[in-house]
Amino acid sequence: MSQQPDLRIDYGRTRAFLTDWLRAEFTRNGFARAVINLSGGLDSALSCYLAAEALGPENVTAIRLPYRTSNPESLEHAQLVIDATRVNALTIDITPMVDPLVAYFPDMDNLRKGNIMARQRMIVLYDQSAALGALAVGTGNKTEIILGYTTIYGDSACALNPLGDLYKTQVRQLSRDMGIPAVIVDKPPSADLWIGQTDEADLGYTYAEVDRLLLLLVDGRRTAEECIEAGFPEAMVRGVIRRIRRNRFKRVIPPVAHLSDRSMGYDLINHPDWGL
Amino acid sequence: MSQQPDLRIDYGRTRAFLTDWLRAEFTRNGFARAVINLSGGLDSALSCYLAAEALGPENVTAIRLPYRTSNPESLEHAQLVIDATRVNALTIDITPMVDPLVAYFPDMDNLRKGNIMARQRMIVLYDQSAALGALAVGTGNKTEIILGYTTIYGDSACALNPLGDLYKTQVRQLSRDMGIPAVIVDKPPSADLWIGQTDEADLGYTYAEVDRLLLLLVDGRRTAEECIEAGFPEAMVRGVIRRIRRNRFKRVIPPVAHLSDRSMGYDLINHPDWGL
Repeated sequence: MSQQPDLRIDYGRTRAFLTDWLRAEFTRNGFARAVINLSGGLDSALSCYLAAEALGPENVTAIRLPYRTSNPESLEHAQLVIDATRVNALTIDITPMVDPLVAYFPDMDNLRKGNIMARQRMIVLYDQSAALGALAVGTGNKTEIILGYTTIYGDSACALNPLGDLYKTQVRQLSRDMGIPAVIVDKPPSADLWIGQTDEADLGYTYAEVDRLLLLLVDGRRTAEECIEAGFPEAMVRGVIRRIRRNRFKRVIPPVAHLSDRSMGYDLINHPDWGL
Repeated sequence: MSQQPDLRIDYGRTRAFLTDWLRAEFTRNGFARAVINLSGGLDSALSCYLAAEALGPENVTAIRLPYRTSNPESLEHAQLVIDATRVNALTIDITPMVDPLVAYFPDMDNLRKGNIMARQRMIVLYDQSAALGALAVGTGNKTEIILGYTTIYGDSACALNPLGDLYKTQVRQLSRDMGIPAVIVDKPPSADLWIGQTDEADLGYTYAEVDRLLLLLVDGRRTAEECIEAGFPEAMVRGVIRRIRRNRFKRVIPPVAHLSDRSMGYDLINHPDWGL
């Protein structure tokens, strides 16, 4: 059994490590510029702060992509980040891109609508990535990646992700430490698909709770039984494991039918130098 | 050095293997139904034939997604496949979804437009996947996956891919063997972004040529020098290797800044049981 893991990290060193990592990845890939979808929420605010610090604000473009049902506060919060970091900004309303498909299926539920919005945002992000010769910087945190609380080919799409190994509660601490406005740090996390939606109501537990469980389960490599023994409610442990399993497809390359002894899919990754 | 590889395969056995694989993957994932984007081209025709044979045509929905500049012949060729396989069909014009973003950037080039179209098609495919409780069957062949001649988060997006280990020339042979209409098998492969576009003109070589090179380079694990010695033009070998390297990002999970000893990104795949 590995050592008891801890959610506490050194935020000064983490900030320096992540900005170094961003600079190194951009250099290695031969890019100077970044694009980021800035939702008005905390994760993308932190990515934007880190990218501005790593690459210089003149090399970062933040894109705001409101839909007609988005909370108008989100635009204002994104503006606070743009003002504080002095990055370039672009705002495009995705409503005309989203609504034709929604109109085609009038009985579409909110989940389907939300996935369409997340993917339309990916389309604009990747188009601007091509237009500006920039890399798309990701904004997904470790909690949402592990739980699969993301839209595949949507908000999880990026060229590289500085936040992917930070749990949501660590994102919040680092953001506070870096001076991101309190109104963004302290508001309830939300996918902002409709006003009043919150992640924690969707998921059925708080990030503080689930991050402690994931730390034990994933970093600590504890079994379900050991987590229950450690005091987590059985229903929560079983539910979280079910969710991790069910969403595994979002974290892997799609499987391919293997006919030869050298084909794509999972295998590829076992040969980090495969791409020659 | 491994054995001299060969492009010839047993098509009867390959067909049986791929339909078995599809059935097994659907069963393993608890799904009975499939959705496929049917472009009118050969790859998606073959995927549709295989899925219809594996799952029964009543469980397969083929989606036609024309754009206003698509060749009208593509719709007709897709219809031939629908008629021959007797799968369910749905046709949605993606023009109203694509054009708002194109109008926003009037100087947008054809490459950017093509990527937007490919990604809008992914959005409809995944929305129907959710609506129908179906898995999205991929249509990418080994040649285009290795070369990266695909749109990331676009035409390469799928839940599983029966064709990913078949070179384009093998796709053509298997398709002929399975009785796919000659008008589809014999036409020049095209992304159909504008009338007259062909893959082989885009790439600068024929599939017959490049498949022989990739077989040597990838399956045969030969070096660039060995491929040149074997008779391939140096410029072609170097150009193909450059393309494989440049497009590596399309074949992997995006990199994450690793802070802990258990995080997402590449590592994940080294633990096939990671998802618990």
